[in-house]
Amino acid sequence: MARPPEPAAPRGAAPAGPAALAGEAVAGYLHEHAADFLRSLKLHGESGADTAAADRAARALRRSARRIGGTLHTFRPLLDPDWADGLRTELDWLSTTLAQEHACTSRLTLLLDALARLSGTAPVPHQTTGATATASTTVAGPLPAGAARAGALLERQLTLARTRAHSAALGALGSARFHALADAVTLLSSDLPLRPLAASRADDILLPVAADAERRLLEGAAALPLGRAGHPYNADALVPLLAEPGPASGEEAQDAPWHRVRRLLRLHRYALEVLEPLRPGGTPPALTRAGLLLDRHRDAAEAAGAAAVAARTPRIAPATAYALGILHADQRHEVEAARFAFQEVWPGSLAVRTRTP
Amino acid sequence: MARPPEPAAPRGAAPAGPAALAGEAVAGYLHEHAADFLRSLKLHGESGADTAAADRAARALRRSARRIGGTLHTFRPLLDPDWADGLRTELDWLSTTLAQEHACTSRLTLLLDALARLSGTAPVPHQTTGATATASTTVAGPLPAGAARAGALLERQLTLARTRAHSAALGALGSARFHALADAVTLLSSDLPLRPLAASRADDILLPVAADAERRLLEGAAALPLGRAGHPYNADALVPLLAEPGPASGEEAQDAPWHRVRRLLRLHRYALEVLEPLRPGGTPPALTRAGLLLDRHRDAAEAAGAAAVAARTPRIAPATAYALGILHADQRHEVEAARFAFQEVWPGSLAVRTRTP
Repeated sequence: MARPPEPAAPRGAAPAGPAALAGEAVAGYLHEHAADFLRSLKLHGESGADTAAADRAARALRRSARRIGGTLHTFRPLLDPDWADGLRTELDWLSTTLAQEHACTSRLTLLLDALARLSGTAPVPHQTTGATATASTTVAGPLPAGAARAGALLERQLTLARTRAHSAALGALGSARFHALADAVTLLSSDLPLRPLAASRADDILLPVAADAERRLLEGAAALPLGRAGHPYNADALVPLLAEPGPASGEEAQDAPWHRVRRLLRLHRYALEVLEPLRPGGTPPALTRAGLLLDRHRDAAEAAGAAAVAARTPRIAPATAYALGILHADQRHEVEAARFAFQEVWPGSLAVRTRTP
Repeated sequence: MARPPEPAAPRGAAPAGPAALAGEAVAGYLHEHAADFLRSLKLHGESGADTAAADRAARALRRSARRIGGTLHTFRPLLDPDWADGLRTELDWLSTTLAQEHACTSRLTLLLDALARLSGTAPVPHQTTGATATASTTVAGPLPAGAARAGALLERQLTLARTRAHSAALGALGSARFHALADAVTLLSSDLPLRPLAASRADDILLPVAADAERRLLEGAAALPLGRAGHPYNADALVPLLAEPGPASGEEAQDAPWHRVRRLLRLHRYALEVLEPLRPGGTPPALTRAGLLLDRHRDAAEAAGAAAVAARTPRIAPATAYALGILHADQRHEVEAARFAFQEVWPGSLAVRTRTP
C-alpha cells in the first residue's frame, strides 16, 4: 500500500487554515510527513523477501525524509535552529544513502537504452522538446560487438555498485544512527521545538519565508547560462569532454549550478506544499516540468560520468572504449538537450512568483 | 592571380541581354567559364614549386569545371544531348579527382580543431545558429593522452590519403583523358553544338528551364525531414552510430538526401548565374547561406566517417578509441546542428522562386 512516489501536493487534511498560526501550518505539514515516514518504515520492515515492496517503501521513506528536511531548512526561522539543523543533517544522510541503489538501477537502464538506440536496435524515443515526427525505422536484433561489450561492462560495474548500495542501505536502516533518527521523527509529532515567531499569523510569517525560498530559486536560475542554453547545439556540455579526469573536471564544474537549481526548485516546491492550506492551487505545472527537466539533466550527467568511468577500466578492447566514447558524448548531448528544454519552459515557471507577495 | 574561389555571379561582360537568343545567353556563360578554365590550367602549369599557387589554380579549375558541367546539365534541352552528357561526365571526373586533396586537408583541420575544443585546449567557436554568448573559458595546453593519440592517428591516415589524392590529381592533369577534356573545353568557345530550340528568345526558353532546376531543388528539400530537423536534439543523426559498418550504413542512408539537395542547390545557383544578364540581382543571400550549411553538413558527415574509419584501425589503445568515439559522436551532432540551421534558413530561400515564372 505504498504511495506513488510523487503525487500532487497534499491538501485537505492539514490542520491549518487562512487564519491559522504559522507554527500550526508548519507543524501540520511535518506531522503528515512524519506519519508517512513511520508508515513507510513499518512497510519496509514487513516487506521481507518482496524486493519490489521494499523498494517502494524505501522510495516513500526518502520522499518523506526529503520533505521533512526541506521544510526544516526553509522554515528554520520558526524552529529551534540547532535542533532543525541536526535533524536535517540526519535526514539528508538517510535519503542520500537510500537513493544510491535506485540511482544505479536507473543509470544502467538509461545507458543500456541509449546503447540500443545508438545501435539502431531500439526506436528513438519521442523527445521532450515536443517532436511530433515518427521515430526512425529501426532494425531489431542483437547489439553490435562493441556496443554489446560496452553494455556488459556497464552492467557489471553498475550491478556491483547497486549491490554495494543495497548493503549500505540495509546497514543504514539497521544502524543506531537510524534508530536515533526514527526516534527524532517520532518525537517531531508531539514535541516540535517552535520559536516565539511561530505564534504569529501564518500569512504574516510563512509567505515571506516561502518567498525567500522562491527568491533563492529565481536567483539560482538567473545565474545559469540560459541565453547560451537557448542556442541549440552550442556544444557547451561537450567541453572539455576529453580533458584528463580530475576532482574538479570541466563537466562537474559546469553541471554544478544546474544541480543547485534542481535542489532549490525542490525546496521551493515543498514550501508551496506547506503553504497549500493557505494558498491552495497545487504545484504549478511549469514548475513540475522544469523540475523533471533538471532531473533528466542530472541523470544524463551521471550516466555520462558512468560511461567515462567504464572507459577507464584497464585492458578493455578498443571497440568497447569506442562505444563508451560515443555513449559518453551522447549523454552529454542529453545534458545539453535538457538545458535547452529547461530554458524553454523556465519563463513559464516564473508565474509562480505571483503566488507569494 | 587566381580568382577567389566563390565570387559573386559574373555579370556585365556577358553578350546576352533581355532580347537575346537563349543559345547566346548559355554560350556567353559557357565561354566565360571555359576561358577561366583554360586560364587556371595555364596558371597551374606555371605554378611549379609554388604549392599555394598550384592549389589556388586547382580550385579555380574545379570551380569552372563545376559551372560548365552544371550548365550542360541544366540547359541540356538547348544542347546536343550526347555531346553535353559526354563532356559533363569528364568534367565531373576532373572536379571529383581534384577535390580529394583539398577535402583531406580540410577534414583533418576540422577533426583536429574538434579534438582541441573537446579537450578544452581551444575555445568553443561561435555557432552558426547565432549564439552571442562568449565562448567558455579554456585552458591552453597540450592535448590529453587519448586525444593526442587520436589526433596523431587521424593525421597519419589523412595525410596519407592527401598524398595519394595529390598524386592522383597530378596524374589526372597529365593524362590523355585530361588533354582530351581540355581540347573539348577549348572547342566549346568556338563550336557549341546548339539545338534549334536555342534560337528562341532567351526569356521564352531559359526561364522555364531554370525554373525546372529550381523545382527539382524545392522538391528535393521538401522531401527532407525538415520538421524533424527543426526539433533540436532529436538525436537522429546519431542513429545508428554503433551499428556494424557496412556499404549501406544508417549514416550514409540518412545523409544521402541532404547531399542530393546540396548538389541541386548548386545547380540552381549556377542556373541563376546563367540568367544573370536577363534577371540581374546576384545569388539570394538565403540561398548562399543554405548552401554553406549543406557544405557544413557534408563536411561534418565526412569527418565523422573518417573518425569511424580511424577507430577501426587494428591494435589502437582503448584511450585512442574512446577519444575517436567522442569525436565521431561530436561530428554527428554537427551534422544534426547543420540540419537544424538549414531548416531555420530554408523558408527564406524560397523567395528566389519569384525570380522565375
